[in-house]
Amino acid sequence: MIERYALSPLKEMWSERARFGRWLEVEVAALRAREELGELSRGVADRVAGATIDVDRINELERTTNHDVVAFIESITEQLDPADAAPFHTGLTSSDIIDTAQALVLRDATRLILHQTEQLRDAIVRLARRHRDTLTVGRSHGIHAEPTSFGLKLLGFAAETERNVDRLRVALDEVSHAKVSGSVGNYANVSPRLEELMMRMLGLRACKVSTQIVPRDHHAAFLSTLALLGGGIERLATETRHLQRTELSEAAEAFGRGQKGSSSMPHKKNPIVGERLTGLARLLRGWMVAAHENIALWHERDISHSSVERYVFPDATMTAYYMVVQARRLVEGLVVDRARMRENTDATRGLLFTQRLMIALIGAGHERQASYDHVQQLALAAWAERGDFRAAVLGDELIAARLSPDELAEVFDPAYFLRRLDAVFDRFPAPAGDEETEPAS
Amino acid sequence: MIERYALSPLKEMWSERARFGRWLEVEVAALRAREELGELSRGVADRVAGATIDVDRINELERTTNHDVVAFIESITEQLDPADAAPFHTGLTSSDIIDTAQALVLRDATRLILHQTEQLRDAIVRLARRHRDTLTVGRSHGIHAEPTSFGLKLLGFAAETERNVDRLRVALDEVSHAKVSGSVGNYANVSPRLEELMMRMLGLRACKVSTQIVPRDHHAAFLSTLALLGGGIERLATETRHLQRTELSEAAEAFGRGQKGSSSMPHKKNPIVGERLTGLARLLRGWMVAAHENIALWHERDISHSSVERYVFPDATMTAYYMVVQARRLVEGLVVDRARMRENTDATRGLLFTQRLMIALIGAGHERQASYDHVQQLALAAWAERGDFRAAVLGDELIAARLSPDELAEVFDPAYFLRRLDAVFDRFPAPAGDEETEPAS
Amino acid sequence: MIERYALSPLKEMWSERARFGRWLEVEVAALRAREELGELSRGVADRVAGATIDVDRINELERTTNHDVVAFIESITEQLDPADAAPFHTGLTSSDIIDTAQALVLRDATRLILHQTEQLRDAIVRLARRHRDTLTVGRSHGIHAEPTSFGLKLLGFAAETERNVDRLRVALDEVSHAKVSGSVGNYANVSPRLEELMMRMLGLRACKVSTQIVPRDHHAAFLSTLALLGGGIERLATETRHLQRTELSEAAEAFGRGQKGSSSMPHKKNPIVGERLTGLARLLRGWMVAAHENIALWHERDISHSSVERYVFPDATMTAYYMVVQARRLVEGLVVDRARMRENTDATRGLLFTQRLMIALIGAGHERQASYDHVQQLALAAWAERGDFRAAVLGDELIAARLSPDELAEVFDPAYFLRRLDAVFDRFPAPAGDEETEPAS
Amino acid sequence: MIERYALSPLKEMWSERARFGRWLEVEVAALRAREELGELSRGVADRVAGATIDVDRINELERTTNHDVVAFIESITEQLDPADAAPFHTGLTSSDIIDTAQALVLRDATRLILHQTEQLRDAIVRLARRHRDTLTVGRSHGIHAEPTSFGLKLLGFAAETERNVDRLRVALDEVSHAKVSGSVGNYANVSPRLEELMMRMLGLRACKVSTQIVPRDHHAAFLSTLALLGGGIERLATETRHLQRTELSEAAEAFGRGQKGSSSMPHKKNPIVGERLTGLARLLRGWMVAAHENIALWHERDISHSSVERYVFPDATMTAYYMVVQARRLVEGLVVDRARMRENTDATRGLLFTQRLMIALIGAGHERQASYDHVQQLALAAWAERGDFRAAVLGDELIAARLSPDELAEVFDPAYFLRRLDAVFDRFPAPAGDEETEPAS
Repeated sequence: MIERYALSPLKEMWSERARFGRWLEVEVAALRAREELGELSRGVADRVAGATIDVDRINELERTTNHDVVAFIESITEQLDPADAAPFHTGLTSSDIIDTAQALVLRDATRLILHQTEQLRDAIVRLARRHRDTLTVGRSHGIHAEPTSFGLKLLGFAAETERNVDRLRVALDEVSHAKVSGSVGNYANVSPRLEELMMRMLGLRACKVSTQIVPRDHHAAFLSTLALLGGGIERLATETRHLQRTELSEAAEAFGRGQKGSSSMPHKKNPIVGERLTGLARLLRGWMVAAHENIALWHERDISHSSVERYVFPDATMTAYYMVVQARRLVEGLVVDRARMRENTDATRGLLFTQRLMIALIGAGHERQASYDHVQQLALAAWAERGDFRAAVLGDELIAARLSPDELAEVFDPAYFLRRLDAVFDRFPAPAGDEETEPAS
Repeated sequence: MIERYALSPLKEMWSERARFGRWLEVEVAALRAREELGELSRGVADRVAGATIDVDRINELERTTNHDVVAFIESITEQLDPADAAPFHTGLTSSDIIDTAQALVLRDATRLILHQTEQLRDAIVRLARRHRDTLTVGRSHGIHAEPTSFGLKLLGFAAETERNVDRLRVALDEVSHAKVSGSVGNYANVSPRLEELMMRMLGLRACKVSTQIVPRDHHAAFLSTLALLGGGIERLATETRHLQRTELSEAAEAFGRGQKGSSSMPHKKNPIVGERLTGLARLLRGWMVAAHENIALWHERDISHSSVERYVFPDATMTAYYMVVQARRLVEGLVVDRARMRENTDATRGLLFTQRLMIALIGAGHERQASYDHVQQLALAAWAERGDFRAAVLGDELIAARLSPDELAEVFDPAYFLRRLDAVFDRFPAPAGDEETEPAS
Repeated sequence: MIERYALSPLKEMWSERARFGRWLEVEVAALRAREELGELSRGVADRVAGATIDVDRINELERTTNHDVVAFIESITEQLDPADAAPFHTGLTSSDIIDTAQALVLRDATRLILHQTEQLRDAIVRLARRHRDTLTVGRSHGIHAEPTSFGLKLLGFAAETERNVDRLRVALDEVSHAKVSGSVGNYANVSPRLEELMMRMLGLRACKVSTQIVPRDHHAAFLSTLALLGGGIERLATETRHLQRTELSEAAEAFGRGQKGSSSMPHKKNPIVGERLTGLARLLRGWMVAAHENIALWHERDISHSSVERYVFPDATMTAYYMVVQARRLVEGLVVDRARMRENTDATRGLLFTQRLMIALIGAGHERQASYDHVQQLALAAWAERGDFRAAVLGDELIAARLSPDELAEVFDPAYFLRRLDAVFDRFPAPAGDEETEPAS
Repeated sequence: MIERYALSPLKEMWSERARFGRWLEVEVAALRAREELGELSRGVADRVAGATIDVDRINELERTTNHDVVAFIESITEQLDPADAAPFHTGLTSSDIIDTAQALVLRDATRLILHQTEQLRDAIVRLARRHRDTLTVGRSHGIHAEPTSFGLKLLGFAAETERNVDRLRVALDEVSHAKVSGSVGNYANVSPRLEELMMRMLGLRACKVSTQIVPRDHHAAFLSTLALLGGGIERLATETRHLQRTELSEAAEAFGRGQKGSSSMPHKKNPIVGERLTGLARLLRGWMVAAHENIALWHERDISHSSVERYVFPDATMTAYYMVVQARRLVEGLVVDRARMRENTDATRGLLFTQRLMIALIGAGHERQASYDHVQQLALAAWAERGDFRAAVLGDELIAARLSPDELAEVFDPAYFLRRLDAVFDRFPAPAGDEETEPAS
């Protein structure tokens, strides 16, 4: 855990105290279910629920037993009447408790991440709708390609975020699986009925088959989803980092009063949030790899996954949570420079319109390949000399013979590139609760 | 591509010829859609569909253009009347073709993998049902834990395979996304309506928003799914490799007539299929990492993903396909040694029953912690001397004072551990088309 | 950081206080070097060295500046006379401080890991030498292959550990690289001479060329080395986990008094140290991937590596350190059961000698392929019926016609397999300071 | 293997025929060594060396034996006199042959890669020396930082390439390890002396201890080295991709006659080589992960590494080789636009000089923090209004009171930033054989 990336309330869920609290919650659910099944007289569960979590005492006991669940059990039972202590944990195996308690945490953590990811999507949609008509240059390979709408660019990130919302929903189901089926999954000392009752009480789902533990493909799938989420945020961050490059200067991260970009260069305003998000995405990928290696455990389980998970589950959920929260702030605080976008669109003096020109020539009956070659020749010449492509086209005889001045004016009209975007924007209604978003003036 | 892991019909889908054929299929769909929209007179699409894929000619042209799609277009248009050549590819960008064609291949490849994975699940379920009552030892940490059913062990793998079937269904949807939205995704020269028509014709789904290409999170999600599938098969393979270890000898891979396990040691029969599957799972994880790094492309696309995908898409789909096919053969050919399983269950002379004994003592009113300690002491002593734990228990005064001979007989009855399994087996009906599976005699 | 895997003294090196202390150390070295170069009057460095590290104050200042080094500088300069404050940090860029200070920590951490890895190698060599003559079965594919020496098995791990010692030495050099070359590496405001002097004072090496920072391939190489170290320990741990399997029971981890293997099964003694080490190796691999992605930063640096390193450098060094320390304890505490090894060697009643038999037959003039086939046939039959292969061989006519009883006795003599091992053991002298190790009786 | 990334002569080394040829080479070396040791009469090795590699026959035999080495042996021995066939492969295990033959290929492949990497380093050094005095802007976070030399930027890549040359030398040693120590590494049927002789003949090194195989940490280390090499080339490629961005246009990849950047946009010239190299680096990282997972094999070996290596060794070596060859072409063909670099340096009208200005103010006795704040304020204002920072400074009263016009002229002199670079360039002498490189006019 890195303090600066650990946000509440997720951070508290991963504390040692919270973990033991979840264990007790599961143990109590087992007792309560047994009461309901008539296996136990009423009242035990309530009394056990009143036991105190004494972290120091548990740690002290673990130094002898070298087994955390055994230490936990001893610390609880020493607080109980013998009659209540007898049924406590009886028939359960450590992993019944650990994995079920962990499912509770992962479920709640995923819900938090999911909620924030929905917020992130909404934030992007809002900004996108505001920039529906903001003309900017579309780039492929980092090279100017064709005019487009800045809002449309943003919408692409909204769509990806939405896909990650969908994937998180699936992942929420994955991590909500738990098990109370005993030492090797055969329900020797607990019944499927008890497991079912407990899961209902706890808001979890029983694994269709478990070994001593919940199979680890559930968790690997979850980590893959977090890595996808991270990758999506990395793509967004890479975009804003690019837009903030000095030569582009089309957008910039919010920069606080008193903030310093550099200890040595007072003029610097750096896209540090975007860079940070980029780095954190790498971590999620690394943790994903470790989580995938956890799948192929030996027989009814080996415990090699455990040390991995001590790091990866808290670190990955907290990092993912931090990322969506920060990404939303990045989007909400983004300073967009429409004028500069327009300037950059014009910077190549007409080169962005080569495709339209070529299509117009073909439409006018000029041969396809010859059209390509002619336009390419004019374009590369204009580029090499940093000349004015539009002027060159207007003065070109071959073209003049085929396209009228009006047709050429239309070729170079940027509005052409935004004319079909309503259909796309219609796929993203204004986020619930928003006033109808007005296009920015 | 490794020849020995490349199985038909998947292998052929990835040939150069097939790839160009898919491109033509997409180009023709574009023409057909334009005919349907009334933008083009009827007949062009049919005529273009008759063009020949000349791989050598395309490669020759690429040596000049250094651009494969341009070379492909030239090779087709030089076969066409100028009137048919004019609308060919017009308004489309290379990626409209490449990504849509690739979606067709990935969709079909995923269907094949999905189908075989269902077969694998069925094969495991069949074997599991046959071994519902086969007593074996459950192991955690590689150490004998408690008796269980070999069929139940297998069911765990069936359940994981079923989860992977579900995940593959989601992945099938992921890879079925394609796009025909032009150079920067703004539909400048093609309409959303055209894209929609083409997708319907091709059996694909249009991306809600695309850049120049289909966003690569779709593919990263797909590769994660294949890695999960690989991890599940690795877990299965790890199990059978363990069971075939000389000391366990509970199951073995089929061994062909004339087969040689070792060039130097004639007695060897090695679990080489399981080992191969284990290795291939590692590759899927490695490819997944590369696919995830492909997400954060620059702006409306950079082409860095392309070299990755030339390797990863064919290799990963073929490897995954090979793995499920081989895993099924492994399961179907598995030689199970029931007698040996029984022997191994007995090998620790009663130690597997410590939990039951402890529960019985607690049930008889003995204190929880004291019960644990007493049983542990007897057990570790028996283990250290490799003595007979059951005999030790029967001769123990403390126990005799609390449990009757009948109660003790019940403690050591392995049937106890299989008595609740019907509930689990009921979750896995006999695969469709199967006669009712009879328990093996 | 996970408390339970964080060992002193490494743990303290990564504290926030220690980090700021290192920064001050570097700043002071810069002043001292400037004094030595005559750029500054003597005494400033000493006075600045007396400044107090006030972590709370620095964190308070960072909340305004959003830049940790700027906050650090302010917290120091506010303690100084203006005359001393003026030269403080002047001409330096944040990364001159951060990367150089980090090199100090990584260097010291690597030295600790290196030292412990040497200790691990010595511990393995000691155990190996003690078991030079301990007969055990060699296994390939998990299947019994041929008799061998348990000491030789161990020596293989000693050799790998030694290779990792060598790699750590190279990695120590990698991480000892630092830089004081200014904002873009052009020495605009500091001279190469100053950098050189500082490095000498600090015991580091200047990068031949730096950007704003130390190039990150140094760190990726370091993480790869830690992952290799982890992989080597994982291989060792996998071996001991296998040996402790109930069916093998050839070796076991030390088991403490009062220790509990399972909360539910009192008889369990599990190889949990080996399992934990196995898991931790996965983490090192995952972190390696993230560190490799840090190499390709933009231009003279982007800061995306930083968030990665906040996690990975402390976590990976602490995990690696923990692993070597625990691995040594595992080796030193390993309980080896010679009798059981001998039993397992005999368990296949002669099958381990098929290669020798085949070679003897070939030596006696029997055709190569026919020899293989005949021996294989006898072996597989013996295995299938779990019969006595040696007896079968002695009773075989074809063999009796070619090999005398004495020759056959020699074929089945396990001593044959240990007779050439002195040459290998001679490559590993007794660790320095050891009494001459006596073979265990 | 991807045809387009497979270059001769490396490609041929990985053919099936070459592989079997290497096997025969090792078998012959074994016979020759035995002749030398007097264990075999002279002449056998020579006769066996004359055997024909019949790939079809071997594949046919493998269909029965399911074991490639056994098939190979049969195909050779069926060509031999029985007297020559008898000693053939006797005492050897398959892995003695496979791993030793593989070491030959990996060694030769690594030599090729190493040689090309040295060429790449030289190419970068040459270009760097030509641009020693080419003024350009240094960027951190993608934001203009301070003026620097384009040659110095390049030298940073040369230095990294040099480090990768050094790492490849270490890796060459890693992969040159082989073994001929029998089925479990105990030299049962071959002597250490024979192994030593064979290694000398083949130009390899014997492992200090081997199992049935060469330990796989050697190969994981090798793959890590290739991934570092890939990462270094990715960093270079990322730089040139950035420089070719339309807004920067400081450098561009060579663009061939007839080449087409886009099927739809005739004006496009894209940095496709750099993008391809970026993608290929991802693959090397993915393969590295798989290679690391190969380390922890079971006991004296399991064969799970084999399927991984069938893909990874050819693919990774061919990809790395292709990358260094292409990277060199990229560097040698790079079109550098000095004028544009100069323009971009001027684009922020003086902002690059804020650090110098601040230092000058501090030098003139202005307080450190106040100097920073004042310069920052002027700089951010100039940036916000896209004004002329230099003019603002010249007109600022506070500054005018402290710095003379001459001092200010010096502050804004870019030559200042290049004045100390000779010391760095001196670390990279002109590549051997070069005429003294003249600075470009």
